[in-house]
Amino acid sequence: MKILFLNGPNLNLLGQREPGIYGTTSLAEIEVRVRQRAAAAGVEVDFRQSNLEGELVTWIQQARGPFDVIVLNAAAYTHTSVAIRDAISAVGLPTLEIHLSNVHAREEFRHKSLIAPVCVGVIAGFGVNSYILAVEAAVSVTASLKIA
Amino acid sequence: MKILFLNGPNLNLLGQREPGIYGTTSLAEIEVRVRQRAAAAGVEVDFRQSNLEGELVTWIQQARGPFDVIVLNAAAYTHTSVAIRDAISAVGLPTLEIHLSNVHAREEFRHKSLIAPVCVGVIAGFGVNSYILAVEAAVSVTASLKIA
Amino acid sequence: MKILFLNGPNLNLLGQREPGIYGTTSLAEIEVRVRQRAAAAGVEVDFRQSNLEGELVTWIQQARGPFDVIVLNAAAYTHTSVAIRDAISAVGLPTLEIHLSNVHAREEFRHKSLIAPVCVGVIAGFGVNSYILAVEAAVSVTASLKIA
Amino acid sequence: MKILFLNGPNLNLLGQREPGIYGTTSLAEIEVRVRQRAAAAGVEVDFRQSNLEGELVTWIQQARGPFDVIVLNAAAYTHTSVAIRDAISAVGLPTLEIHLSNVHAREEFRHKSLIAPVCVGVIAGFGVNSYILAVEAAVSVTASLKIA
Amino acid sequence: MKILFLNGPNLNLLGQREPGIYGTTSLAEIEVRVRQRAAAAGVEVDFRQSNLEGELVTWIQQARGPFDVIVLNAAAYTHTSVAIRDAISAVGLPTLEIHLSNVHAREEFRHKSLIAPVCVGVIAGFGVNSYILAVEAAVSVTASLKIA
Amino acid sequence: MKILFLNGPNLNLLGQREPGIYGTTSLAEIEVRVRQRAAAAGVEVDFRQSNLEGELVTWIQQARGPFDVIVLNAAAYTHTSVAIRDAISAVGLPTLEIHLSNVHAREEFRHKSLIAPVCVGVIAGFGVNSYILAVEAAVSVTASLKIA
Amino acid sequence: MKILFLNGPNLNLLGQREPGIYGTTSLAEIEVRVRQRAAAAGVEVDFRQSNLEGELVTWIQQARGPFDVIVLNAAAYTHTSVAIRDAISAVGLPTLEIHLSNVHAREEFRHKSLIAPVCVGVIAGFGVNSYILAVEAAVSVTASLKIA
Amino acid sequence: MKILFLNGPNLNLLGQREPGIYGTTSLAEIEVRVRQRAAAAGVEVDFRQSNLEGELVTWIQQARGPFDVIVLNAAAYTHTSVAIRDAISAVGLPTLEIHLSNVHAREEFRHKSLIAPVCVGVIAGFGVNSYILAVEAAVSVTASLKIA
Amino acid sequence: MKILFLNGPNLNLLGQREPGIYGTTSLAEIEVRVRQRAAAAGVEVDFRQSNLEGELVTWIQQARGPFDVIVLNAAAYTHTSVAIRDAISAVGLPTLEIHLSNVHAREEFRHKSLIAPVCVGVIAGFGVNSYILAVEAAVSVTASLKIA
Amino acid sequence: MKILFLNGPNLNLLGQREPGIYGTTSLAEIEVRVRQRAAAAGVEVDFRQSNLEGELVTWIQQARGPFDVIVLNAAAYTHTSVAIRDAISAVGLPTLEIHLSNVHAREEFRHKSLIAPVCVGVIAGFGVNSYILAVEAAVSVTASLKIA
Amino acid sequence: MKILFLNGPNLNLLGQREPGIYGTTSLAEIEVRVRQRAAAAGVEVDFRQSNLEGELVTWIQQARGPFDVIVLNAAAYTHTSVAIRDAISAVGLPTLEIHLSNVHAREEFRHKSLIAPVCVGVIAGFGVNSYILAVEAAVSVTASLKIA
Amino acid sequence: MKILFLNGPNLNLLGQREPGIYGTTSLAEIEVRVRQRAAAAGVEVDFRQSNLEGELVTWIQQARGPFDVIVLNAAAYTHTSVAIRDAISAVGLPTLEIHLSNVHAREEFRHKSLIAPVCVGVIAGFGVNSYILAVEAAVSVTASLKIA
Repeated sequence: MKILFLNGPNLNLLGQREPGIYGTTSLAEIEVRVRQRAAAAGVEVDFRQSNLEGELVTWIQQARGPFDVIVLNAAAYTHTSVAIRDAISAVGLPTLEIHLSNVHAREEFRHKSLIAPVCVGVIAGFGVNSYILAVEAAVSVTASLKIA
Repeated sequence: MKILFLNGPNLNLLGQREPGIYGTTSLAEIEVRVRQRAAAAGVEVDFRQSNLEGELVTWIQQARGPFDVIVLNAAAYTHTSVAIRDAISAVGLPTLEIHLSNVHAREEFRHKSLIAPVCVGVIAGFGVNSYILAVEAAVSVTASLKIA
Repeated sequence: MKILFLNGPNLNLLGQREPGIYGTTSLAEIEVRVRQRAAAAGVEVDFRQSNLEGELVTWIQQARGPFDVIVLNAAAYTHTSVAIRDAISAVGLPTLEIHLSNVHAREEFRHKSLIAPVCVGVIAGFGVNSYILAVEAAVSVTASLKIA
Repeated sequence: MKILFLNGPNLNLLGQREPGIYGTTSLAEIEVRVRQRAAAAGVEVDFRQSNLEGELVTWIQQARGPFDVIVLNAAAYTHTSVAIRDAISAVGLPTLEIHLSNVHAREEFRHKSLIAPVCVGVIAGFGVNSYILAVEAAVSVTASLKIA
Repeated sequence: MKILFLNGPNLNLLGQREPGIYGTTSLAEIEVRVRQRAAAAGVEVDFRQSNLEGELVTWIQQARGPFDVIVLNAAAYTHTSVAIRDAISAVGLPTLEIHLSNVHAREEFRHKSLIAPVCVGVIAGFGVNSYILAVEAAVSVTASLKIA
Repeated sequence: MKILFLNGPNLNLLGQREPGIYGTTSLAEIEVRVRQRAAAAGVEVDFRQSNLEGELVTWIQQARGPFDVIVLNAAAYTHTSVAIRDAISAVGLPTLEIHLSNVHAREEFRHKSLIAPVCVGVIAGFGVNSYILAVEAAVSVTASLKIA
Repeated sequence: MKILFLNGPNLNLLGQREPGIYGTTSLAEIEVRVRQRAAAAGVEVDFRQSNLEGELVTWIQQARGPFDVIVLNAAAYTHTSVAIRDAISAVGLPTLEIHLSNVHAREEFRHKSLIAPVCVGVIAGFGVNSYILAVEAAVSVTASLKIA
Repeated sequence: MKILFLNGPNLNLLGQREPGIYGTTSLAEIEVRVRQRAAAAGVEVDFRQSNLEGELVTWIQQARGPFDVIVLNAAAYTHTSVAIRDAISAVGLPTLEIHLSNVHAREEFRHKSLIAPVCVGVIAGFGVNSYILAVEAAVSVTASLKIA
Repeated sequence: MKILFLNGPNLNLLGQREPGIYGTTSLAEIEVRVRQRAAAAGVEVDFRQSNLEGELVTWIQQARGPFDVIVLNAAAYTHTSVAIRDAISAVGLPTLEIHLSNVHAREEFRHKSLIAPVCVGVIAGFGVNSYILAVEAAVSVTASLKIA
Repeated sequence: MKILFLNGPNLNLLGQREPGIYGTTSLAEIEVRVRQRAAAAGVEVDFRQSNLEGELVTWIQQARGPFDVIVLNAAAYTHTSVAIRDAISAVGLPTLEIHLSNVHAREEFRHKSLIAPVCVGVIAGFGVNSYILAVEAAVSVTASLKIA
Repeated sequence: MKILFLNGPNLNLLGQREPGIYGTTSLAEIEVRVRQRAAAAGVEVDFRQSNLEGELVTWIQQARGPFDVIVLNAAAYTHTSVAIRDAISAVGLPTLEIHLSNVHAREEFRHKSLIAPVCVGVIAGFGVNSYILAVEAAVSVTASLKIA
Repeated sequence: MKILFLNGPNLNLLGQREPGIYGTTSLAEIEVRVRQRAAAAGVEVDFRQSNLEGELVTWIQQARGPFDVIVLNAAAYTHTSVAIRDAISAVGLPTLEIHLSNVHAREEFRHKSLIAPVCVGVIAGFGVNSYILAVEAAVSVTASLKIA
């Protein structure tokens, strides 16, 4: 089993960017922790970040085949990108939406996700642990799909 | 460490109720799985269900002291109850909002949560695993609070 | 065949409460008239009232088995209760929404029913006769379901 | 006592038109059933259909005098016709709004009735039985008006 | 003359709950102060709290007869309860809406009261003094009704 | 100079219809008064009424040539008819919107006119005198167009 | 009989101000024409302009007694002034709302009048003739009030 | 194969009506061009226009049997007619919505089509060529249906 | 201690103006009653009225220094004046919003106060007693500020 | 004459992506069919696809000079891209908006096109034939521009 | 060249008023700095403040002739005054809207300017420097108008 | 001190693109003028343009360190990009939003800026001078930050 972790715009600044909201852990450190957890669960992981909406679209498209699940922190594009939504629908892979912060406790425009309706589920507000929980969630989603 | 799991209206029907949306596992079976996971993590659990908004309010109020975290599947009251929101603010315990189904993929009125803005975070869409993930999330939330 | 009549908040005040809107017949008198009509149609009836949203939810849940149809005058909860809506969906019994007054001729917020979309149909505006018509409607609904 | 049944646009196609929504009974068959029930109740009936908003307006206007009650299935015009609403207000005859389908369970724009606020009441969702119930409702409405 | 003071959900936590918003006085202490003021004005007082919407509805219904005025701090139910609104209309007793905090200076959803349109008036934002002012207001409302 | 007076749905009931809103003068009597005033001003008049939106559209289309001005009381169609609006734009004749009642003091949906934006002006609220004032207004509109 | 003509902000610039919308006639010239027409009808006229909302409020208040009718071109305050609306309600004099331009053919925010609901009627779009028509309308309004 | 071209209100004025928006070709000339193209494609055509919403409804109803496809320029009724929408759903014939002008570049209320959701597709903005393209589109739609 | 009572537009007409809504007491009589109550409480009072938004702004500005509290019945400006709101924020004096009528039971546009969010609290619906209660409220507000 | 066909995000997946909505033809096959039709019409074609909003903007910018018309299936960016809209306005080339599916029959957010108001016209819902029709439409648009 | 600086309500309190938002410089000090800069640029300046909407309207009207440009900090009236907007349109002088604070970072109702659409441009958020920049901007605006 | 000027989509077409809105100066010419002004002020400048949202995000991220201020004309992305907004918040550099045209005088969707709330201030409507003013504004913003 193989999970593709995709990170959207500005997540490359994690650790420096507004630590009151996003914490002090860098994206590289998150990747390390995700890989540890994934290894423990016998799962392979790819981990990428892009500021370009279209590059995220392309990565989602290319996930079909090499990957079993996508875990997507689309960041700002969560609220504006129909293209990413359509890419998820197009590839048909189970996708998990995650967020570091609790988006529902922030600005009104962050309460609406264009992407969530085509995802399996959402995990938001647990900081780095949103990523760790997503590994476990991805495993269980894939398991239940294999049974069905 | 002790977690209070609260389940809102109609969750007592799980397993019978619209299995296409909510799955075939009963609430009692979910409780068993939650207790197993919690036991493995060395965590105590209380697990309750009520159809009464006001009873849920009272249980949240009484959680202060005996419990460290609340995991709340408020079901229908997620979208209509300011009283439950105010109870969470009032007791000041970290609270996790969870859902079996992906509420964002359902009717428009289920996209808005009155409760999420006063919670630590949200886990939705993973069926029974939303509860299991919540045990792990609750542990990490409590851990990070103790450090801070 | 057995029908469960459920009456929501403040309907216990009928006859005294705003007679210009709700008429001068008490709920007990309505029950008598409903029982007469039901008896004539060879139908059993149970007839209850509660001011508690959660108690109405519980009664709807318990209707599965003992009853064939629910006739529901949810009164104020018609416009605010997702919990009652979910209970109706959960039990899967044919449910009829009824109102004494013509809700569409009153305040704007009474024009929207959260419950109607999961009901078989709606009867509103005929005073006590909304209840009497509901007996006949319930019989025909059940009949058509048995054929199908 | 005499009831005018008015049927709006596309109801002449009943039986052929979208049977999943509107059933398989034709308008002529509905008329037969309405006449049987009316005869049993000692009530005269006129039964008409038009695709023209203005013709429905004219028929409502002309109902004053020959008829005691109007039963109106305005179909599509329910949601768009201020002219029919004004005609009902103008003639001052008690009018019942009926629908075959449960309009509240369909598209958003069918949830709003421009006509209901000037009617006595509404019966919707019982298929052909919406018409049959309307006979009984019309009788009771007229009776209560005579007493008052 | 006799006043019924009704307190809605979470007000039993006063003094502990978010003191920045609600102050440090407990509900019991408020009751003491209300009783002192009422005694000085020669007025009897009953003072209750409930987290249950339906119990508040029932208490309002039962106020007719034993009480002359209701003073209602419906707390969270102020913004969501049509049932409480209908109960006030049904009993026809003069009712005063009060709040400890200035609800208009808080979240948008607290600016709208479903209950105020059927009350005599509103007092909000004066902390414990909202209750004390309500005693005086209730006396004057009753006085003016007796004259009229 | 020749004016076409067009009257929309239900105006044929004037005098009988809701006299509290529309007065006790019949449409025939209004026509008499309009003709008197027009004669005094040396203006020819045609005066028609229809309940059919499409017939009003056709009459507006045919006004080009025989008439210099249209005075239009579109009644209910004021608020719903894009077709009448388009007809006015298409023929390019100066058109005056008139109403017997002050539509702005009635239901919300009567505050919006689809037709007014393509008219020269609006006269509303003066009962029969709305028609009489329209004769004078029509004369002045035509006069100013001839100068320009 | 005596009419008070009140002109709101910027109308003192008429003739210079945006002649494409408001024409080339100055307010003084309009006053001359109004006085001529009024004289012919045996009516006295007072004619004022102010840029101050509060001064218009005061003039409306003082109209009670000396005047029988108010003709009000509130200009920009039409769309923003609750104070002028309340003044009209307070004095209880019949008031006519007039406009030089057809406000419904201009920006969206000019389509809503806060004042029209408390006026007798509206005349808009006839340039200077809106004022002249208002003299005639005012006479007929007063006449009909005297009869009633 | 046979196509029914239906033209809504005011299209009979084409060539005279607002040529800046609708061009200088008359409806008769459009019919000639449509017939030429249809003949070249071996397709029969009927071509009608009506200002009456109800007549368009009736023609759509009667198209079932004699026709394979409907090409509908509903003009103003595009934005207001639920009745035409329901007629299209009722007959179940593939229907193409066409417009001479690009409705999306005009007034806001023309951006919403009530009819498009029940059509196969939309062609708008190409003047007379919208009709010519519709012949080709209709042929291909029918062809693909025959294959399937 | 010194309180500035400010009264907005049209309150100078009290007693004459719509007595059904505002009562029969004149503003001068209210002032007398306020002064009596204030004297009893050992408080000085200034009492003013203006129809000018800007004059109210100026008076609020000048209150800083001579006064300890402002009691403001902004009347119509409650719903439209950002300038008065900004003045209150600017001077930083505790301000009480009061109303004679229960604004929440009137037109929709009176439910929204632009001023309340920057006030200490609101008292509405008690007629003249709203002013009397405000004296007591002002005293307690000042007292609690002195302690803090 | 030369046409630039631009395809937006996810259209590179055609044939695999949700065939129920988008059909089973790949983008390469569509290109073949477009080139055949264009060749028959003596028209040159360039055919490109990008997932990047900015690359589409750049291609539109560069179309000025080498191309006479743009045919744009902006896919998801239709509903979110002001940048593409501005690019079309900036280059001033006639642009046709096309869609494979009937966007008006899908989710609400697909009903609004930010791009259509600056296009010549729209063709939607004909699957691959939307592209073929666009060749013909483009030829006629160019022809009419050359005449004018 | 001569610039008229107009300052709206509460700006006379600058330096004392909410220094966190508006800074600690008084309006008189701003005037000094504006005059220095203007003098350096060879520009004359007039500098005024009023709390009265109508006085600002009058000053704008009177600017025509003596002044070449208006620089307007309308403060609270920015968001509520159609009268000031109309005055700017009426005099036709180039007008610059300025703000000390960044209004877009404050309450929602401050994001909308009624005045900006009739201004040349907007400068907001630079504190006192908004005024200084406006001198330079005014010079360049006038220069470019003289060339054109 | 060093300023980064960033230009969004389509600004590379300046001079050719819609000169009525954007003027006839090319972006290269604007850069020359900006560099002249900056040189005069002793400020270094970098000046870039991109059509890619993600590239603008990256440039903003990289500005931290080498630059003291960002001047951003985000063009179309002003109204749609949460990603650019988040980038500005993340880097924490003072950012100035500028526009050539007065966006408030254009289409409704251009009135809302997603970026302005996280900027220091806004300059819009002065054509090339918006850039020149921004140099001066940037200098003063940096100066005031150094003092603080």
